[in-house]
Amino acid sequence: MIKIHFPDGAQREYAPGTSSLDIAKSISEGLARKILAASVNGQVWDLNRPIYQDATIKFLSWEEKDAKSTFWHSTAHLMAEAIEDRFPGVKFWVGPPVENGFYYDIDLGGRPLHEEDLKVIESKMKELAKQNNPFLRKEISKADAIAYFEEKGDEYKLDLLQNLQDGEITFYTQGAFTDLCRGPHIPHTGLIKAVKLTNIAGAYWKGDEKNKMLTRVYGVSFPSQKELDEYLAMLEEAKKRDHRKLGKELGIYTMDDDVGQGLIMWMPNGTIIIEELEKLAKETEEAAGYHRVVTPHIAKESMYLTSGHLPYYADSMYPPMELEGEKYYLRAMNCPHHHKIFAAEPKSYRDLPYRIAEYGTVYRYEQSGELFGLMRVRCLHMNDAHIYCTKEQFESEFRAVNEMYLKYFKIFGIDKYIMRLSLHSPEKLGKKYVNEPELWKETETMVRQVLIESGIPFVEVQDEAAFYGPKIDVQIYSVIGREFTLATNQVDFSQGRSFKLSYTTADNNHDTPLIIHRAPLGTHERFIGFLLEHYAGKLPVWLSPQQVKILPISDKFMDFAQTVKNQLKAAGVRVSIDDRNEKIGKKIRDTELQRVPYMLVVGEKEVSEGKVSIRRQGKGDAGTMSIEEFVTVITREIKERSSGD
Amino acid sequence: MIKIHFPDGAQREYAPGTSSLDIAKSISEGLARKILAASVNGQVWDLNRPIYQDATIKFLSWEEKDAKSTFWHSTAHLMAEAIEDRFPGVKFWVGPPVENGFYYDIDLGGRPLHEEDLKVIESKMKELAKQNNPFLRKEISKADAIAYFEEKGDEYKLDLLQNLQDGEITFYTQGAFTDLCRGPHIPHTGLIKAVKLTNIAGAYWKGDEKNKMLTRVYGVSFPSQKELDEYLAMLEEAKKRDHRKLGKELGIYTMDDDVGQGLIMWMPNGTIIIEELEKLAKETEEAAGYHRVVTPHIAKESMYLTSGHLPYYADSMYPPMELEGEKYYLRAMNCPHHHKIFAAEPKSYRDLPYRIAEYGTVYRYEQSGELFGLMRVRCLHMNDAHIYCTKEQFESEFRAVNEMYLKYFKIFGIDKYIMRLSLHSPEKLGKKYVNEPELWKETETMVRQVLIESGIPFVEVQDEAAFYGPKIDVQIYSVIGREFTLATNQVDFSQGRSFKLSYTTADNNHDTPLIIHRAPLGTHERFIGFLLEHYAGKLPVWLSPQQVKILPISDKFMDFAQTVKNQLKAAGVRVSIDDRNEKIGKKIRDTELQRVPYMLVVGEKEVSEGKVSIRRQGKGDAGTMSIEEFVTVITREIKERSSGD
Repeated sequence: MIKIHFPDGAQREYAPGTSSLDIAKSISEGLARKILAASVNGQVWDLNRPIYQDATIKFLSWEEKDAKSTFWHSTAHLMAEAIEDRFPGVKFWVGPPVENGFYYDIDLGGRPLHEEDLKVIESKMKELAKQNNPFLRKEISKADAIAYFEEKGDEYKLDLLQNLQDGEITFYTQGAFTDLCRGPHIPHTGLIKAVKLTNIAGAYWKGDEKNKMLTRVYGVSFPSQKELDEYLAMLEEAKKRDHRKLGKELGIYTMDDDVGQGLIMWMPNGTIIIEELEKLAKETEEAAGYHRVVTPHIAKESMYLTSGHLPYYADSMYPPMELEGEKYYLRAMNCPHHHKIFAAEPKSYRDLPYRIAEYGTVYRYEQSGELFGLMRVRCLHMNDAHIYCTKEQFESEFRAVNEMYLKYFKIFGIDKYIMRLSLHSPEKLGKKYVNEPELWKETETMVRQVLIESGIPFVEVQDEAAFYGPKIDVQIYSVIGREFTLATNQVDFSQGRSFKLSYTTADNNHDTPLIIHRAPLGTHERFIGFLLEHYAGKLPVWLSPQQVKILPISDKFMDFAQTVKNQLKAAGVRVSIDDRNEKIGKKIRDTELQRVPYMLVVGEKEVSEGKVSIRRQGKGDAGTMSIEEFVTVITREIKERSSGD
Repeated sequence: MIKIHFPDGAQREYAPGTSSLDIAKSISEGLARKILAASVNGQVWDLNRPIYQDATIKFLSWEEKDAKSTFWHSTAHLMAEAIEDRFPGVKFWVGPPVENGFYYDIDLGGRPLHEEDLKVIESKMKELAKQNNPFLRKEISKADAIAYFEEKGDEYKLDLLQNLQDGEITFYTQGAFTDLCRGPHIPHTGLIKAVKLTNIAGAYWKGDEKNKMLTRVYGVSFPSQKELDEYLAMLEEAKKRDHRKLGKELGIYTMDDDVGQGLIMWMPNGTIIIEELEKLAKETEEAAGYHRVVTPHIAKESMYLTSGHLPYYADSMYPPMELEGEKYYLRAMNCPHHHKIFAAEPKSYRDLPYRIAEYGTVYRYEQSGELFGLMRVRCLHMNDAHIYCTKEQFESEFRAVNEMYLKYFKIFGIDKYIMRLSLHSPEKLGKKYVNEPELWKETETMVRQVLIESGIPFVEVQDEAAFYGPKIDVQIYSVIGREFTLATNQVDFSQGRSFKLSYTTADNNHDTPLIIHRAPLGTHERFIGFLLEHYAGKLPVWLSPQQVKILPISDKFMDFAQTVKNQLKAAGVRVSIDDRNEKIGKKIRDTELQRVPYMLVVGEKEVSEGKVSIRRQGKGDAGTMSIEEFVTVITREIKERSSGD
């Protein structure tokens, strides 16, 4: 008998040769129906591959990334079968799963592939899927494999075989299609209930433009039609919410060739969002006892040699400027400047925790091919701060930082988020990690404890900490489920020492402070990009560049419109009048497109009653109010930073 | 008879050989007593030098810069006479007037000069001054002059003579002292009523360190003792108000070798001042219809080739960074980025005037020897904005900018200021100046008209405009009379064209906007430096980093102190408690030194009455108030940005 261990610590015995699927069935039929693959001793395996030795097993269902990859990889084989059926003699290169689906690179011998072909292939795939053909795994010798593909005249698979050894070659067959493949696969094609072929592209063989151009067919598949429909709707929605599209339509930001790639210029509307975010950060940080500072964007080479960023981080920095025999760098991070502020005046334990904050601008070199809208840029405005504290103060400081995150998440309606706690690896102390075993243990324990107590979902990852301490990556999800890495929080034992930072202790000795690096709102660039997608451009009133638009039905009502405007302006509301000579219907449509949250329609009735008729963006008529009432409603909504729902 | 013209257009006739002094006497004895020299056909002359031809004369009294220089130069001769009296055989190099006084470089044959010597020389000078010895001018041939100094064995004056021609050599004699000198001088020594020798320094002959070290004696003199006393008091005050000293004492800013020279790091207290100034600017600009933008600190070479800053301004810029084959520059000005914002969306005449503002950070290269505290730095945060307007809108826009200046001057108690209007030169159109004679005439007339109507004092200077339009330099004076160049305002016909900026006119054509460059608050660096000196560090409450300090007489009153603090904090006041275990006298003294405007003393009496005892910085006891009353008083003072006097 072999021993099978489960993630919850349980253990069972089975006959040698039992498959994961058999084991799942032995637990429950429901489980067996739900799973797509299994992790056997850390490797993803076919569910029906027999197990002959003791093993640790984890079943993988659709929610797991590895299960999705397996599912999509199997769909690529299914697609290949359908393609071969339609185009006999077609040759296949590789067909891997990707982030959202799969592709296969094929050689059609020069025949072009059209949208109509995709339709035909798609329906053939559905037909083949219904046959519930099992994916059969077969180990094969290199010589037999070569013989097989030589007979087929398949130079692509023969090329792949060159790099493989005897004993590591497997074929997979489903229905009429056999492929050289290391697997794993799902049990049978019947699990693939919904398929969509999404795109045709050209791709040079092996990515080399000197080689032949192959045809790449992209697709995605799901275990149910419902999931496919949701995915396609999400894609449609994501397109509408694309921050690059919204950024242009709403006058948020622009870029220019003479300024340079990845260098955002914030237009007036974007700048209003920036200022509202900074106001929020300043209020929050002020209440939390932070001091603010303003530091330059450059520093001398010596600073980045001390910090250790040079030479290791040089590739991500702009190249230096030489002045009077000295090298100056555009900064890629704010911490060294902040350390200098800490050091500028002597500190005692009474000054700690010392928290300094700055919306610091940093410049990072990203290859031009990597740049993407507001998400990957070269100039970043960071909601940065550094907290210098004693070891005793660390836990409460870290807890306070976490609470700040949660406060922000609430304001922005971010209810899906996860933290990733990266820990050190004890064997690598003194090499990859500062050799402070006790400090590592203590801070990791404290950080974990705080995360547990805050109820923040988190995962732990071994051996991914920073050189100088454990770190936390914060992942947030927009309302349509898109994932964004918001910020990294780091605990730092090391830079305090490198910069010779110290404070006088209560017993008149000197000690080095611990440092927390934190940036809960990330960078303006990424966060505003996130917000645009999250809210589909319909920002809450407090963040809206334009909060109210007054729409007079005709010029006759301009005086009243002006009175309303003045009252709103006096109350600090961002308001304007649509004074164009247009029909009211057009004014409403245009204002809707500008995503102005409140429209006030002003005509005969409103003037005579001294009221305004209110429309909410995307929601239509919202009744009438006196000007005073409306001022009260909207100023409260702004003050409370309400989401407006 | 010769014709003498006066600046007011008047004209009189005099006998040839009449001196300026005679002419002055012919007008009034009072005038003759008041003047020290005369400008004859634009050259400064001795008052008693005879005039043989028609001339334009302007009398120069103490208030004129040229009169001061003449006065100080004559005092240098008087000092030389006194030195020669005390040290026979001393040799003299040069003795010019300088910005505040004069010096003479002397060779004492190796004898050191001491402070006590200065005393003796000073009293000898006073004695000689009382003799009312006239300064006598004598034209002399080069040969005679050489003979004179060869006999004296004076290698220094012989060296000077080498570069002079026959016909341009004059001697001046007063009392027992004769010097080779081109003049001019005041009529006699009796006018020098007050003298102070201020400093002894070493100076290499001809400034060359390979030469002999001479002794440089500095002094200053005045037409009355009162003026000297005032000057010395001002010097004393200026030392106390030095922004570098105050900047350190009050934790305003710091610099660091690893960051780089001239790169200011704003500490928490300085950052509070920055934020208050930015708040003021944003409020003011918002009310004036400006949009705000945020743009990067770098741009590609092509941008500065378009703007014309390269190659002409390259010496004042940091050297470029090369990235992916492109040169990037740290910006030295914000305008090109703003032009790109203007151009990012199509504009019509309805969008104009389009005003965009940014507290833009720029980097300028100043030689390290030129750097000085906050006054000459390499990184500047500029209260910048650019106004794009039609020709018709220009005058009212320019007027509004001027009114903004005046508003700021009032807030900061700047009651001495002057504007310097730099005009073009018609002959240089098309060469030094854009060839737009009509636009020049129009804008210069408009600018002049606005200045006159605003009642702003200004002077006009020919041929000093910018390439692209007339410009205005704003000079302000601190309460101790120190002069600061605050900002330059410029009218710009040219960059709009270079950047191909355009707007659609009402008749559907296209036109290029005029641009106004303006920065009423200059840069944070220079303006905060000015404010520290202007207020001697005692900033008005709204600008004070710490507004209130609560001083409990003992720990017993900490609870009450905390209550007071919480109420003030809730009202938005920057308040802290001096919770040190110190006597109240020491707490008051230390808080005075920190220039905290309000101190609240809290003891037995205050707790029992529920009141606070108020002290104003530098003014002592200011009575008692209930907490609520005090909150009302101070929040009003802050809101009104009152100077607190």
